[in-house]
Amino acid sequence: MKAAVLHAFDEKLTAKEFVKYEDVADPKITRPSDVVVRIGGAGVCRTDLHIVEGIWRSKVDVNLPYIMGHENAGWVEAIGPGVEGIKVGDPVICHPLVTSGHCLACRRGNDMHADDSVFPGINANGGYAQYLLTGQRSLIKLPKTLAPKDVAPYTDAGLTAYRAAKKASRHLLPGQYVAVIGAGGLGHIGIQVLAALCAAEIIVVDRDDKSLELAKTCGAHHLVKADGNEVEATLALTGGRGAEAVIDFVGEGEAVARGLAMTANDGFYYVVGYGGKIELPTIDLITTEKTIVGNLVGSYAELVELMKLADRGLVQLHTKEYKLSAANDALHDLHHGRIHGRAVLVP
Amino acid sequence: MKAAVLHAFDEKLTAKEFVKYEDVADPKITRPSDVVVRIGGAGVCRTDLHIVEGIWRSKVDVNLPYIMGHENAGWVEAIGPGVEGIKVGDPVICHPLVTSGHCLACRRGNDMHADDSVFPGINANGGYAQYLLTGQRSLIKLPKTLAPKDVAPYTDAGLTAYRAAKKASRHLLPGQYVAVIGAGGLGHIGIQVLAALCAAEIIVVDRDDKSLELAKTCGAHHLVKADGNEVEATLALTGGRGAEAVIDFVGEGEAVARGLAMTANDGFYYVVGYGGKIELPTIDLITTEKTIVGNLVGSYAELVELMKLADRGLVQLHTKEYKLSAANDALHDLHHGRIHGRAVLVP
Amino acid sequence: MKAAVLHAFDEKLTAKEFVKYEDVADPKITRPSDVVVRIGGAGVCRTDLHIVEGIWRSKVDVNLPYIMGHENAGWVEAIGPGVEGIKVGDPVICHPLVTSGHCLACRRGNDMHADDSVFPGINANGGYAQYLLTGQRSLIKLPKTLAPKDVAPYTDAGLTAYRAAKKASRHLLPGQYVAVIGAGGLGHIGIQVLAALCAAEIIVVDRDDKSLELAKTCGAHHLVKADGNEVEATLALTGGRGAEAVIDFVGEGEAVARGLAMTANDGFYYVVGYGGKIELPTIDLITTEKTIVGNLVGSYAELVELMKLADRGLVQLHTKEYKLSAANDALHDLHHGRIHGRAVLVP
Amino acid sequence: MKAAVLHAFDEKLTAKEFVKYEDVADPKITRPSDVVVRIGGAGVCRTDLHIVEGIWRSKVDVNLPYIMGHENAGWVEAIGPGVEGIKVGDPVICHPLVTSGHCLACRRGNDMHADDSVFPGINANGGYAQYLLTGQRSLIKLPKTLAPKDVAPYTDAGLTAYRAAKKASRHLLPGQYVAVIGAGGLGHIGIQVLAALCAAEIIVVDRDDKSLELAKTCGAHHLVKADGNEVEATLALTGGRGAEAVIDFVGEGEAVARGLAMTANDGFYYVVGYGGKIELPTIDLITTEKTIVGNLVGSYAELVELMKLADRGLVQLHTKEYKLSAANDALHDLHHGRIHGRAVLVP
Repeated sequence: MKAAVLHAFDEKLTAKEFVKYEDVADPKITRPSDVVVRIGGAGVCRTDLHIVEGIWRSKVDVNLPYIMGHENAGWVEAIGPGVEGIKVGDPVICHPLVTSGHCLACRRGNDMHADDSVFPGINANGGYAQYLLTGQRSLIKLPKTLAPKDVAPYTDAGLTAYRAAKKASRHLLPGQYVAVIGAGGLGHIGIQVLAALCAAEIIVVDRDDKSLELAKTCGAHHLVKADGNEVEATLALTGGRGAEAVIDFVGEGEAVARGLAMTANDGFYYVVGYGGKIELPTIDLITTEKTIVGNLVGSYAELVELMKLADRGLVQLHTKEYKLSAANDALHDLHHGRIHGRAVLVP
Repeated sequence: MKAAVLHAFDEKLTAKEFVKYEDVADPKITRPSDVVVRIGGAGVCRTDLHIVEGIWRSKVDVNLPYIMGHENAGWVEAIGPGVEGIKVGDPVICHPLVTSGHCLACRRGNDMHADDSVFPGINANGGYAQYLLTGQRSLIKLPKTLAPKDVAPYTDAGLTAYRAAKKASRHLLPGQYVAVIGAGGLGHIGIQVLAALCAAEIIVVDRDDKSLELAKTCGAHHLVKADGNEVEATLALTGGRGAEAVIDFVGEGEAVARGLAMTANDGFYYVVGYGGKIELPTIDLITTEKTIVGNLVGSYAELVELMKLADRGLVQLHTKEYKLSAANDALHDLHHGRIHGRAVLVP
Repeated sequence: MKAAVLHAFDEKLTAKEFVKYEDVADPKITRPSDVVVRIGGAGVCRTDLHIVEGIWRSKVDVNLPYIMGHENAGWVEAIGPGVEGIKVGDPVICHPLVTSGHCLACRRGNDMHADDSVFPGINANGGYAQYLLTGQRSLIKLPKTLAPKDVAPYTDAGLTAYRAAKKASRHLLPGQYVAVIGAGGLGHIGIQVLAALCAAEIIVVDRDDKSLELAKTCGAHHLVKADGNEVEATLALTGGRGAEAVIDFVGEGEAVARGLAMTANDGFYYVVGYGGKIELPTIDLITTEKTIVGNLVGSYAELVELMKLADRGLVQLHTKEYKLSAANDALHDLHHGRIHGRAVLVP
Repeated sequence: MKAAVLHAFDEKLTAKEFVKYEDVADPKITRPSDVVVRIGGAGVCRTDLHIVEGIWRSKVDVNLPYIMGHENAGWVEAIGPGVEGIKVGDPVICHPLVTSGHCLACRRGNDMHADDSVFPGINANGGYAQYLLTGQRSLIKLPKTLAPKDVAPYTDAGLTAYRAAKKASRHLLPGQYVAVIGAGGLGHIGIQVLAALCAAEIIVVDRDDKSLELAKTCGAHHLVKADGNEVEATLALTGGRGAEAVIDFVGEGEAVARGLAMTANDGFYYVVGYGGKIELPTIDLITTEKTIVGNLVGSYAELVELMKLADRGLVQLHTKEYKLSAANDALHDLHHGRIHGRAVLVP
């Protein structure tokens, strides 16, 4: 099959070609629960750029060459002998993690923290290709209203935004505020999820006017330009208290300290983006009684929930399509801020 | 009345006398809800040393000279005209915060985050004295089984430990672990609360053998010497996972990074002690999905709950008494690690 | 002052005049926290009919003659010497319960379950009058956007619907269903609250076409005529599972058994309306693991939350005005099903 | 193999032999995830008597003849080709439900509410036999400290008691009360679980003095004889409020109404036992804002949690052994109240 393969890390992202479009061996069914999916769409994610930079080398086993692409949807091409309830030809979206389901985390519905799991596109071959090897437990059948290429980015970008927004919505009450930092690929979904799941007022902070415009259409109630005064602006909007929840989709540079500063006492700072650092005297955390929450994708059940929101039109994904053979164009456009919403590779 | 008064900050804690035992004016009832309490016991807290050092100057308004002492219990001496349900002579323990009860935080039972409040001993005159001015909403009547001088440290040390341990007990399941860092004044109460409120196995980490012995009697299941290998030791005890909850009563030096390192993925790090710094790349928080929780004393209702545990003997406080006139001895003994449990000033 | 006074019970509601419009003594400030409110609007509630019928005699102390009216809003007319933060002339809405705030339930924010409380209009003189005696802790200042007569019914009808809908929204996930039985005075608010607080699909069950039409404008996704087949219709809409939450604003006749029958396994049946009876073999509750939840008005903080929703236009109240002197007309119209939305008495 | 087989219902339980000890075909592996367990112990449960009476006919498909026994533990005898992580000879305890793990309830960790499941001993052949057919997802490996015959009753009696007690422990605070009605096979475990998981005071209500004695050793703080005055006695113990949680392991006769009556306002009545009926005017549920909770066994993860409590000695099961061939003796002894704790059939 054809695939866009990563052969070398590139710390500064200066190469013209991050990946090479070439022929590779087809994936094969070897275990009873294996499924091969013909890719209909594979999302392009900032994490892919971070992988190219080599940031993930210390976190997971990545052996080059390998195929990136952890946001996948398509059609079932082949199934192992133990697969039930899914048949060849079914349109499916792939939860990013492949698990056996036996460990206690999985049995509690918390499959992101499975004892044993594979994350195609991160620590195994992913979906920048014609076919993907995954497992039965990762698949959700798509309703007819949703085409694979239109939903692929929900599996990671969407799901991560959903989970963080869902956590926040559990404690946000009418009269309270949530600040969203960054209205990009994840942020614009997070805003829609918040609007669907709670009645807090949504403040969106971004340095880009186009992203703020997008945020408005996604349901933001207040727009704040990230021009260095975003903390003051957020405090002003919230009567000086700050926001009871802050969801930081940037997670690097000044965003972290400012995100913490605009969090209300007794409030929650959800960090989703990464690349930066949390630095905070313990006394500051104690006198304010703030909570800092890490967020890692989401569970299978949460992807089902997100698909329901998508199916009902409560969440809409803004995508831009690229041919698989043009994967480098997509990666470069993302790197240079030329994508509003989410890039998707199609066959 | 007599009081032990702070006249000057002392950053290095080198003075022979931190406070001066002298005559000051008696507190007076001016508002309908005011109450004057005759002090039976006033706890001596590490925060008092931090106040002497001047650490709190940037956090709250402190004007010298003033009277420290934020852990108070005694007998009602005088009441304002609007006070109901409490009468002169009643033995009482004083919640550390004085609030009006009108703001939304108070109406939600979250009085620690009141819009307007006074914290005697922190930003107003406290209980290193014969009498203390407080308010009706701060008082809990004591059962006959509990003497003021024996329970005074519950109001801050005890309540803070209780609240953090209670938060952890809400998610700790049988088969999971909680690591307590520091088995001192707060820690030894926290361990007892955990043993009462959940069935997780309790690992206690301390560098002092005497404190570890105390921890054992408080209900610790595993003792770990903080000798530089405490992370490895905790991981070994927990099957490599780490503890689902870590409660850090130290919050400075190596404790913070090590506490975070011994927290399981999807687990919670509760920070109670302070003086140090949290430093953590956002990617580490995300890939592990850990949560970092600040903790600030506790609510009035939580102090009532803690008094019930004390009354039933489920929590016991180890105290050492000093005369009010010997406040400096207590502060110096605390500073030099000569107190196991908690020091209390008595009339 | 003028008031509409109840002088006698009327079990069958056959009297021409349930209440008598007459002169009574003005209420007087006697306690520091007392407040007299000049009534701008007093909601007329089915509970008032139940009071006339004498149903409440066994539940609370009601001594005739007395003044009904437990949904009140207006302007502050006079305040006791201990009242802070509220001044004469302020427009206010009155939480239906008057509490001292000292008991543990109040301290936990759960003021509906106060140890000592007064419920004007239920067990003390209410707001079918020119003036009402209430207390500082019951008052919420109104924003300029909201007039007393337009919001009065929020204090009980609105707040009760809000609390039940909020409880349900805490567990309702995208892809799940909530069935609302009865789209009348409470139901039409409950539907709007559900639409604001969660993303479950809302099924509304009512036997009246006009009420179903109103439900549609309030945000219902599916309408079911209560014609005897409402259980089957709801099961069909939910793929045979039933609704994960059912909120029963009727609570009498067939509604109860049918509401329980349309509740999904592991789901919640919230009962708000009353007059009927729950009858259920314990084996049925066990094999289905359903939960049955009683609902009693709501807390002060919840009324603040509801006012925010109203202020933002997320919840709108459909009211019909009657002069205080025409209180009997309002009660009769309610009794005979001639009111869609909520009746309000105005000066 | 040998088995004790039910051939006919017996509504009045008058037969000398409820089951027949005879030769039947061995169970066989047919699906990849199938497992055959050699029975080490099979608990005898009141539900078995209810099955003999025919009560369950209307709830599940039961075709006679079949083998009862839904509380099973033993050793793995044979495994299907898809089974991982468990090998022949392993000592195991069997979660009572056999599920595929594919439905959303299972994916959320809520396997008791699986869309498709088999309940051996209820709607398929159970463990009153030498061998049992179950599935991989139902098995928990036992530590060496726990023998199959000693733990078998945990799978249903224990797990049901655990789940109800765990639910209650989530909201029970120090200073609150939990009343346990019935200190028999389930109740005596529930009491121990409550003592391990929370610090509420435990009141045990039973009409049998021996059961009350057992309750005392299990951790009960207050004993109440069920002599008709148990409501008054419980109210007296709780300062007139009632218990914030009531767990009713009887669920029939007077227990239900009395259990509801001894539940505090804003409290929870957990019904576990069955055979009786809930009858309650809706107004009573509303004015008290009580919640009635159905309870159905527990999840796989909860059985793991309970095994941890057992392994640590925090929960101990009182059992009485009978030979499989003497199954009728066990059933008769249970029927006539001659068993304190739990009967177990052994090979």
